[in-house]
Amino acid sequence: MNFGSDNTGPVAPQVMEAIVRANSGYASAYGEDDIMDTVVEQVRDVFEAPDAAVYLVATGSSANSIALATHCSPWQRIFCHPLAHVEQDECGAPEFFTGGAKLTLVEGDSGKIAPGALQTAVGSIPTDDVHVVQHGPLAITQTTEAGTVYTLDHIRSLTKIAKAHGMPTFMDGARFTNALVSLDVSAAEMTWKSGIDVVSFGGTKNGLMGVEAVVMFNPDRAWEFELRRKRGGHLFSKHRFLSAQMNAYLTDDLWLQLATKANSAAASLADAIASVPHTSQRFAVDANMMFPTWSRGQHKQLFDAGANYSIQPAGETLTGPGNELVSGRLVTNWATTEAEIGQFVDVLAGR
Amino acid sequence: MNFGSDNTGPVAPQVMEAIVRANSGYASAYGEDDIMDTVVEQVRDVFEAPDAAVYLVATGSSANSIALATHCSPWQRIFCHPLAHVEQDECGAPEFFTGGAKLTLVEGDSGKIAPGALQTAVGSIPTDDVHVVQHGPLAITQTTEAGTVYTLDHIRSLTKIAKAHGMPTFMDGARFTNALVSLDVSAAEMTWKSGIDVVSFGGTKNGLMGVEAVVMFNPDRAWEFELRRKRGGHLFSKHRFLSAQMNAYLTDDLWLQLATKANSAAASLADAIASVPHTSQRFAVDANMMFPTWSRGQHKQLFDAGANYSIQPAGETLTGPGNELVSGRLVTNWATTEAEIGQFVDVLAGR
Amino acid sequence: MNFGSDNTGPVAPQVMEAIVRANSGYASAYGEDDIMDTVVEQVRDVFEAPDAAVYLVATGSSANSIALATHCSPWQRIFCHPLAHVEQDECGAPEFFTGGAKLTLVEGDSGKIAPGALQTAVGSIPTDDVHVVQHGPLAITQTTEAGTVYTLDHIRSLTKIAKAHGMPTFMDGARFTNALVSLDVSAAEMTWKSGIDVVSFGGTKNGLMGVEAVVMFNPDRAWEFELRRKRGGHLFSKHRFLSAQMNAYLTDDLWLQLATKANSAAASLADAIASVPHTSQRFAVDANMMFPTWSRGQHKQLFDAGANYSIQPAGETLTGPGNELVSGRLVTNWATTEAEIGQFVDVLAGR
Amino acid sequence: MNFGSDNTGPVAPQVMEAIVRANSGYASAYGEDDIMDTVVEQVRDVFEAPDAAVYLVATGSSANSIALATHCSPWQRIFCHPLAHVEQDECGAPEFFTGGAKLTLVEGDSGKIAPGALQTAVGSIPTDDVHVVQHGPLAITQTTEAGTVYTLDHIRSLTKIAKAHGMPTFMDGARFTNALVSLDVSAAEMTWKSGIDVVSFGGTKNGLMGVEAVVMFNPDRAWEFELRRKRGGHLFSKHRFLSAQMNAYLTDDLWLQLATKANSAAASLADAIASVPHTSQRFAVDANMMFPTWSRGQHKQLFDAGANYSIQPAGETLTGPGNELVSGRLVTNWATTEAEIGQFVDVLAGR
Repeated sequence: MNFGSDNTGPVAPQVMEAIVRANSGYASAYGEDDIMDTVVEQVRDVFEAPDAAVYLVATGSSANSIALATHCSPWQRIFCHPLAHVEQDECGAPEFFTGGAKLTLVEGDSGKIAPGALQTAVGSIPTDDVHVVQHGPLAITQTTEAGTVYTLDHIRSLTKIAKAHGMPTFMDGARFTNALVSLDVSAAEMTWKSGIDVVSFGGTKNGLMGVEAVVMFNPDRAWEFELRRKRGGHLFSKHRFLSAQMNAYLTDDLWLQLATKANSAAASLADAIASVPHTSQRFAVDANMMFPTWSRGQHKQLFDAGANYSIQPAGETLTGPGNELVSGRLVTNWATTEAEIGQFVDVLAGR
Repeated sequence: MNFGSDNTGPVAPQVMEAIVRANSGYASAYGEDDIMDTVVEQVRDVFEAPDAAVYLVATGSSANSIALATHCSPWQRIFCHPLAHVEQDECGAPEFFTGGAKLTLVEGDSGKIAPGALQTAVGSIPTDDVHVVQHGPLAITQTTEAGTVYTLDHIRSLTKIAKAHGMPTFMDGARFTNALVSLDVSAAEMTWKSGIDVVSFGGTKNGLMGVEAVVMFNPDRAWEFELRRKRGGHLFSKHRFLSAQMNAYLTDDLWLQLATKANSAAASLADAIASVPHTSQRFAVDANMMFPTWSRGQHKQLFDAGANYSIQPAGETLTGPGNELVSGRLVTNWATTEAEIGQFVDVLAGR
Repeated sequence: MNFGSDNTGPVAPQVMEAIVRANSGYASAYGEDDIMDTVVEQVRDVFEAPDAAVYLVATGSSANSIALATHCSPWQRIFCHPLAHVEQDECGAPEFFTGGAKLTLVEGDSGKIAPGALQTAVGSIPTDDVHVVQHGPLAITQTTEAGTVYTLDHIRSLTKIAKAHGMPTFMDGARFTNALVSLDVSAAEMTWKSGIDVVSFGGTKNGLMGVEAVVMFNPDRAWEFELRRKRGGHLFSKHRFLSAQMNAYLTDDLWLQLATKANSAAASLADAIASVPHTSQRFAVDANMMFPTWSRGQHKQLFDAGANYSIQPAGETLTGPGNELVSGRLVTNWATTEAEIGQFVDVLAGR
Repeated sequence: MNFGSDNTGPVAPQVMEAIVRANSGYASAYGEDDIMDTVVEQVRDVFEAPDAAVYLVATGSSANSIALATHCSPWQRIFCHPLAHVEQDECGAPEFFTGGAKLTLVEGDSGKIAPGALQTAVGSIPTDDVHVVQHGPLAITQTTEAGTVYTLDHIRSLTKIAKAHGMPTFMDGARFTNALVSLDVSAAEMTWKSGIDVVSFGGTKNGLMGVEAVVMFNPDRAWEFELRRKRGGHLFSKHRFLSAQMNAYLTDDLWLQLATKANSAAASLADAIASVPHTSQRFAVDANMMFPTWSRGQHKQLFDAGANYSIQPAGETLTGPGNELVSGRLVTNWATTEAEIGQFVDVLAGR
């Protein structure tokens, strides 16, 4: 009954096999391996972007931060949602990599930036005033940190505002594929066809050991990205083992299959939860993450039974009255089983 | 005939098996995995340092830079050899992670800082002058970038100078174990017993997929290191796969066996080269790397025959006279075979 | 009729005379001048802080940023009001000097941080979570950017929260003396006796040419401050001319007299405005700055008559309907005359 | 007998008068003052550069650092002489403002970069290797820190190398005018006509209170410079007092007159020293600074007699044998008198 994070689950067997297979003899280091040549073509195909610059790093924070830094001067500001991973969960990595840019928080329901709020935030900053931190990139997360998924129209309404102000647009796609299969659209549609300039195309949360691709549809800053990656200590010598993961991920639609499994498990879990009286969901369950609410006593029973997930807010210790409502965060992944879901909901329901 | 780098070689089978074995079910993310608990104890045992802070990262540049930044204010200077990896090969990662510290280059033969030169360099900088960049850490590389190995006495003569000026001492141990087996001393003797405060204990060049441990014998700055690692994007979510590598590395003396193999291969290669007339070595071959010299024509023959190694200096293109002497850099690793060595030297000797 | 800013006004004659007087022969550079020795004693006397570290810089942004950086690690966050100068008006100088710290905005009426909001903001950040930007300094502005003045009780309620979380406390005192005379308290009472650790004691807006003192009641980080000041290019060679200004400022209560004049002028102006029908003030007029509201048409008349002040928000162009209400920002200074005030209000009133 | 530094001398009376004169009524802040409009035209005229971007800051370190940062990415290196002020005397300000660039030291006699050494240094760095810190600006100091002056041919030979590698060229002109009158050339000839892209045009060491102009002959990065200046805390609110200094400086050839006086005094001092047996000069006395050598005993006599200058190297304490030779550094300025020189040499000669 582990719903702690898609980070705690196992690597998909096809990926592990590819890693083992890559361990044969010698391979050029630092991204010059042959597998990477294939990966670049695979990623370009997936995104229908034959000129895109494609790079691999091993962590989501580095993918996001180096991508943002490549598109944000130190005296600029990144517009993001208050719940954004770059704001909440990276210990200031974007500030570090950009050399001190500011993150300006733009509100919106369900973890999504509201277009009106973005318009206000962007519009309130004069463009010719040396005293203020300047316009920089728009950063949106797809799947959002609330487990919801932006529609294409929503993305376009945001990128349109950014473009009108000359701002680059970045998508944190740590759960990119979960959103993609949820929307049933193409990677191109969810990115550059919707006005996105650069994307962190996540794999780690979807069955890889630790690989995220950064895809820049305009390759003008490719060399700068490479320098920033190296300077940040994120260029791997035995890079072939990153390449092998992404290669397997994009072979035979594995990436889509894994995300589909995770999303299906979430839907199944959400349905089962909904069948338990006095439970609710804080947000729509669009992908593989949910924030359900039930009583503190039920949380205690679940933890006593060995369930693994987090409760919110940070600091909640389950010491209060048992009948008060408390929210949790549950994440499914490709390896989540129906048995786990059944067991979990049985405990929740007191069965 | 691949002597390009110990970075281009394969992962040791025991390590790959450990990675595969670790891929079972769920594990806590971000260094909270059970394997890491074991690794911390293993590293402390190896270094006879029960209080040491121990962390894993995936690249040498990040290990060096985060360790240095944790011991160097932005207005301080790092004393290192002109050939040091931190100076030559990290695209300014130490400057980036420290927030703009200066690297002051201290000369010495064979890639080793000369104690006299260090004394002069350190002594020439006043300690109470706000106009000058201040004293910061001493950084030495063991095995050096010249493929040589510092004696313990040499290390102690350097760390003594540093300590006299209140400077922390750092060892870049990307090829730590190659030096260790070369000297036939203990890890404790080569580090804290010789005045070293913090070490990058490298694994990637010695048969791991991508793991370096940072060991701080004084754990006072452990939390700062953790924050810097996270902020640098170097804290892995699926950290168990880093732990598994280091766990296997330190089990049944695998680390020592791998380095012994690499060093033996280097000795064998050096001997074979020495048997070819008109060849020489620029530096002593103490570990698993050498810089031999022979004619440009011989280099051409070797490359034509498929040999893989680098020539020096950068920019040398083999277009000059065939009888002129040109140096190369050859690195062996645990997987280097006698057959490769024989084949290589046959070509070199024109046999 | 210039109410644009206390930055646009003249230097007090006593200060200019002191500058001229200092221009005699040679003086040691970089803060080693004799006048500075006197200034240190004067500042310590004023603040009743015999051990305080005292430094001069020439701009408010540098005073604030270097003081904050000396008390804030790159991975920490500064808690400040959304209107704070450090957030709004320094083009990210705090982010630059700290090496990428985050500014976390804490709401409150009238430009003042609400204690409850601070408690919530501080309390919601776990202290042992490596993923989040850590607790750093509390920064409050006295006089606030809304022209209001914190009571001592209010300051103490904020610093108490900060202290309970081990956070250093900083006061941006660009209009320090205007607040001091408004409250009629001592400099010690408004700072360290109310829990403030470090203050930017501003002079430029109160009749100096360009000098702010940074006063650190705990001198432990004095040397770090000196290094940061030098490294930031803010250590003046001909420092005697900074010293001379501060020396004159603190002689014969000049600083108090100048602020009293500015505040009196503001009170007089506010009274006169209040006598004009259909005008209002957005905030209490506690010191020398106010944000009055009247019709767009009246603003036009004032500008046509040569009045100098700013309207809000940024981007307001006076092209809309003449009868709509629009706010302005007016600042008085020591040189503001009753004649100017009278002329201004005559135009406002259509007389 | 004060030859400590041109930083310790007085402000020229014409400059002080201009400061006093500027203190009349209100003036727009932050560089929007009317005097600055005139200054921009004056500087453009002096440099025969009608399109140049011209900005004022108050310190040499800020002028150098902001100018360099505007022309140097964090992953680039600045080529400068080992004695350069940016390397030796700014506590790492260039590293701070650039976000961690590297200073690569290029040797040469008499404080001047040798063209051959620059060619070697620049040529040894591959331009397509992501592992190395990349080519960045060339920085030369005119007058050098050895008190010598580059010929135009020498400057051109250096800038030619830089241009061939696409490197911007920067001149630290803290003693710009001393070199100019020494060479008897125009400001245009010594800068852009000799391949210089950006110059710190110093005033503080030549009779101003504290003003340096940064002149960028290509204004493409003007806005970036403005943002960096503000973000660095170097944009003055009461900027008119900087403008007034530079305005007076460039009026009626005052800048040339002041430098001519300083250089003449140096020539006179050098001549008088040469008349004393057993003295020598380490470098040619081209401008207003010299490094003479005489016995330790003579240094003692001079200090006993009240002379003010520095001895070298740092740490020399005059406690050794009286007859050993020790060097000093003497600087003249516009206010140096023949009487001081005579008195000094009398003591030196034991008269």
